[in-house]
Amino acid sequence: MFNMLDRYNNHRDIKKMTLEELDCLATDIRNFLIEKVSKTGGHLASNLGVVELTLSLFNVFDMDRDKVIWDVGHQSYVYKVLTGRKEQFDTLRQTCGISGFPKRNESIYDFFETGHSSTSISAALGMARARDLKRKKHNVIAVIGDGALTGGMALEALNDVGYRKTNLIIVLNDNQMSIDKNVGGLSTYLSKLRVDPSYNKLKQEFNSTMERTSVGKGIVYSINKIKDSIKQIVVPEMFFEDIGIKYLGPIDGHNIREMSKVMDLAKEIQGPVLIHAITQKGKGYDFAEKNPNKFHGIGPFNCNSGELSFISGDSYSKNFGEELVDIAKEDENVVAITAAMPDGTGLKKFAELYPERFFDVGIAEQHAVTLAAGMAAAGLKPVFAVYSTFLQRAFDQVLHDVCIQKLPVIFAIDRAGIVGEDGETHQGVFDISYLSCIPNITILAPKCMGELKSMLRWSTNQDFPIAIRYPRGGDLKDIVFSPLTLEKIQKGKWEILRKGKDVAIIATGKMVQIAEKAALILEDKGVKVSLINACFIKPIDKKMIKDLVEENKLILTLEDNVTTGGLGTQILSYINTLNSNIKFNNLGFKDEFINQGDMVSLYKNYNLHPEGIVKSVLEML
Amino acid sequence: MFNMLDRYNNHRDIKKMTLEELDCLATDIRNFLIEKVSKTGGHLASNLGVVELTLSLFNVFDMDRDKVIWDVGHQSYVYKVLTGRKEQFDTLRQTCGISGFPKRNESIYDFFETGHSSTSISAALGMARARDLKRKKHNVIAVIGDGALTGGMALEALNDVGYRKTNLIIVLNDNQMSIDKNVGGLSTYLSKLRVDPSYNKLKQEFNSTMERTSVGKGIVYSINKIKDSIKQIVVPEMFFEDIGIKYLGPIDGHNIREMSKVMDLAKEIQGPVLIHAITQKGKGYDFAEKNPNKFHGIGPFNCNSGELSFISGDSYSKNFGEELVDIAKEDENVVAITAAMPDGTGLKKFAELYPERFFDVGIAEQHAVTLAAGMAAAGLKPVFAVYSTFLQRAFDQVLHDVCIQKLPVIFAIDRAGIVGEDGETHQGVFDISYLSCIPNITILAPKCMGELKSMLRWSTNQDFPIAIRYPRGGDLKDIVFSPLTLEKIQKGKWEILRKGKDVAIIATGKMVQIAEKAALILEDKGVKVSLINACFIKPIDKKMIKDLVEENKLILTLEDNVTTGGLGTQILSYINTLNSNIKFNNLGFKDEFINQGDMVSLYKNYNLHPEGIVKSVLEML
Repeated sequence: MFNMLDRYNNHRDIKKMTLEELDCLATDIRNFLIEKVSKTGGHLASNLGVVELTLSLFNVFDMDRDKVIWDVGHQSYVYKVLTGRKEQFDTLRQTCGISGFPKRNESIYDFFETGHSSTSISAALGMARARDLKRKKHNVIAVIGDGALTGGMALEALNDVGYRKTNLIIVLNDNQMSIDKNVGGLSTYLSKLRVDPSYNKLKQEFNSTMERTSVGKGIVYSINKIKDSIKQIVVPEMFFEDIGIKYLGPIDGHNIREMSKVMDLAKEIQGPVLIHAITQKGKGYDFAEKNPNKFHGIGPFNCNSGELSFISGDSYSKNFGEELVDIAKEDENVVAITAAMPDGTGLKKFAELYPERFFDVGIAEQHAVTLAAGMAAAGLKPVFAVYSTFLQRAFDQVLHDVCIQKLPVIFAIDRAGIVGEDGETHQGVFDISYLSCIPNITILAPKCMGELKSMLRWSTNQDFPIAIRYPRGGDLKDIVFSPLTLEKIQKGKWEILRKGKDVAIIATGKMVQIAEKAALILEDKGVKVSLINACFIKPIDKKMIKDLVEENKLILTLEDNVTTGGLGTQILSYINTLNSNIKFNNLGFKDEFINQGDMVSLYKNYNLHPEGIVKSVLEML
Repeated sequence: MFNMLDRYNNHRDIKKMTLEELDCLATDIRNFLIEKVSKTGGHLASNLGVVELTLSLFNVFDMDRDKVIWDVGHQSYVYKVLTGRKEQFDTLRQTCGISGFPKRNESIYDFFETGHSSTSISAALGMARARDLKRKKHNVIAVIGDGALTGGMALEALNDVGYRKTNLIIVLNDNQMSIDKNVGGLSTYLSKLRVDPSYNKLKQEFNSTMERTSVGKGIVYSINKIKDSIKQIVVPEMFFEDIGIKYLGPIDGHNIREMSKVMDLAKEIQGPVLIHAITQKGKGYDFAEKNPNKFHGIGPFNCNSGELSFISGDSYSKNFGEELVDIAKEDENVVAITAAMPDGTGLKKFAELYPERFFDVGIAEQHAVTLAAGMAAAGLKPVFAVYSTFLQRAFDQVLHDVCIQKLPVIFAIDRAGIVGEDGETHQGVFDISYLSCIPNITILAPKCMGELKSMLRWSTNQDFPIAIRYPRGGDLKDIVFSPLTLEKIQKGKWEILRKGKDVAIIATGKMVQIAEKAALILEDKGVKVSLINACFIKPIDKKMIKDLVEENKLILTLEDNVTTGGLGTQILSYINTLNSNIKFNNLGFKDEFINQGDMVSLYKNYNLHPEGIVKSVLEML
């Protein structure tokens, strides 16, 4: 079916292939990925963009010795195909299947794990310095996108790279995109390089230099000559050179011949080198070329039409975005901030309607938070919409810049709880813990999508820091709640949904829906359940806890967060002061990272499904 | 005593002064600061470096309208003197005194609080964008050091600044230092600018341009002419310009006339501008000029000799540094990393002895952690020495880059607990909470300095992520413990120091010393105390807790961390599973930020002194 790919055995084959064969292999890999990802879902566009780049790495470097570090890692599918994982692509991102990111326990060719952006240069530099101290000789290559390069830690790393003359090759995969369209001065700068009139001239010089010398054939005596020639081919007076990093480029990242030549050259250079490769996200698949954003992380789709196989239903993100637009209509102080994810966080419509009040800062969560702090200090009402796992990047800014000053910044924390297929790097199961320990913050979680709207509206009327956490996807279809209305929301007051006398289940966020299902089963079995919507995670409702402790035999807390430092522990700490002997149990995630898989099974694994809750209650009663 | 300073009333006076008078005022302020800080201690060198820079700001900008945002904030003393806080300098950094950092409740001229580095551009940009949306007209000025500029979030902010054409003035205070000598490619780049041969020529052009136009006198018709002239005076082809920020400089930061002219010009430019001012840390005070590092943050000293009034005793930092040198002698895989604080963290000697194994990455905690992760993945044993409060910056990297992969990185967390005079931005009272919720990490705390040595040695022999937290300063003089020896340290096993039957006090770190004092008082009163050294904060010693619960009437936990998510809550959660009715109380810090003050009083405020502990025990028994 795939001429070249079917015959492919292992990465050593690549070095024996002609350029024409490599081009055929590239086409095969593209078609293979489109076919596979159309069934499993996954990151498609970014992988289509790095087919030739990846093949060039295999063509030039010794993959049994050299080490490639992928930034973010969702563009490592081609690499996975080429390093013995082709047959496993039917299991991509599924329970017990191969990961959508590099994983050290999956292959000896995965050297460093990732999932968040902008870590590759730091990690690769660490490995390169280890190599030097251990007197080894292999190459270390970091592949980083132009979007990831705006992340502060990547720039911190560049600063360090340029200072010491460690041998390190950085391949800048410049597709002018992070997940969405790229922003920022750096991106403007990179596009300048792309269209630099000197480029064509340089390219010519470079090519003729390459013809004259014998780089790639490994002839040592030519190295000094090459070193001289480098001085001619690098763009003078530029940033990377200024901070001590040799710059090679820009190069057409889809031309294996050119890419291989430049990589060959990079190997011979002493000190750090940056190869600026220009690629196209979605390359070779029409639908993805035209709509790389849609095909960035996509569910199963029809290969021929490019249409999604399942229409995604209503979601928390969508409700958030709609309500924020409505609020912004009435309150011109409301502004929205995103770190390169206007679409994922539901801010697309806000951006269209209020471009002057919408700020996409690039992959830069730290800056996003302190920017919001500055805005709040000057009288605006900033809403930073961000995934739970990415807000981890800005923990210090939340604490130091927002909360010490009690500034009214709103954190709209999407993808809280299990996210599913993206796996351990993306699960949003720590935010209750890392936010609860920060003074001055108020944390809410809506029990349903409608309640998210009231909470958002309520939050824009307060004058202190607020986090609202809500899950991926939408509500359960068979549970219908009346959302708390704006008037009913009161700081630190919980909502009673059922009043019983045997067990009080205190649940937060979407767990309230699961708890309601458990309550229905329990009532069937004759257990009288109090069901509490812990709409405020911080502060907790002490008055209500006191009442519950007096009226029930057992308290069970439910949260989609690790139990360590979670809501349950705050409730237990308060119960401990009441001199009561009531039985207590808190359900949440164990002290471990949670693998990829479908959301329903993962919640079940941790007994956070209705039957699991029923079992826990019955065991304790 | 101070001719000009004594006559100074308020900031409006400055605009009326001649340049000669301003120079006199500068001298007075310098002498004033030297005198005051010699008594209270504080940040001296950085403030001596910005006297003229600050006066120039007052000379040019309208301080009743314009907003100056100080990065880090420890260089805001001159600003404080000039904005009505001169008389309060005897209380600098003391309980209820003025802060060593900007504080909004201290003055209407402090617009944004800080203490950590690299936040000013983000905050100022937020304020500038708020200004524009609110259709106001004032200037917003961020003053940032070259050291702070290497922090990732400052670079994230620069990227955003350059992209949109928001009016913002960034004053780069380039003294070639952060706290210690600056490192990194960016610093190399800045020094290139300083010595650029084009500088003198540019300066001449600039001066004559300034003579011809009438900037500073506010004559509007000259603005267009100035705009043209700007094109001539900026250095072409440079980084700041490339990312969309106008560059003015370099300028002698101690020349009020030149600085004022450039600032005047910056006011008229549309879009973001960066003024590159060259200053000298410690300027005007011989001892500080020669040893700016010593006079960065200094205790009380003798003005005439420059000698410290009190010799600082033995410290945890010192013991850490000495032991690491010894370990490194035997194990060549051990390497040390610091984020611009080789001296504060005790790594100076290591750096001298093992320069090739010592990595100062600049103010870049995120990069430091992931660099360590890369090194660990490649077989080294990296030790990242960092203050508790600054590790907050790298929360995500600890979780995502180190702990998911279980990499053997050692975090040597200095300044855990109360740090004292630096106040709320610097207290290290959150690390137990934010680290405990991370899977795969092991957290230790030594009860005395000797134990830190064993723990460090033990840690370098493990193959998983480890954090060791220890306090500022040294041990209590009147408590002598035998440190746990290397052989006695066992993961998750606590140490019994006293065995009683009434109350079990489980304390961690230096709190064990305080607990021992409390135990002595309690024994005098006939209370039999079990005293436990919770040398492992994670994992906790469940076996021992079980025994303690069976043998005692009451459990009291003690930690110098906020109680939310702290050690006490982990212990309580486990006790809850034991079906016991034992009384339990956990002492630690309340859910609030802790102000500046002397360490002893602050611990006392939270009942974390021997008498407070005794009182808590007696109340519960």
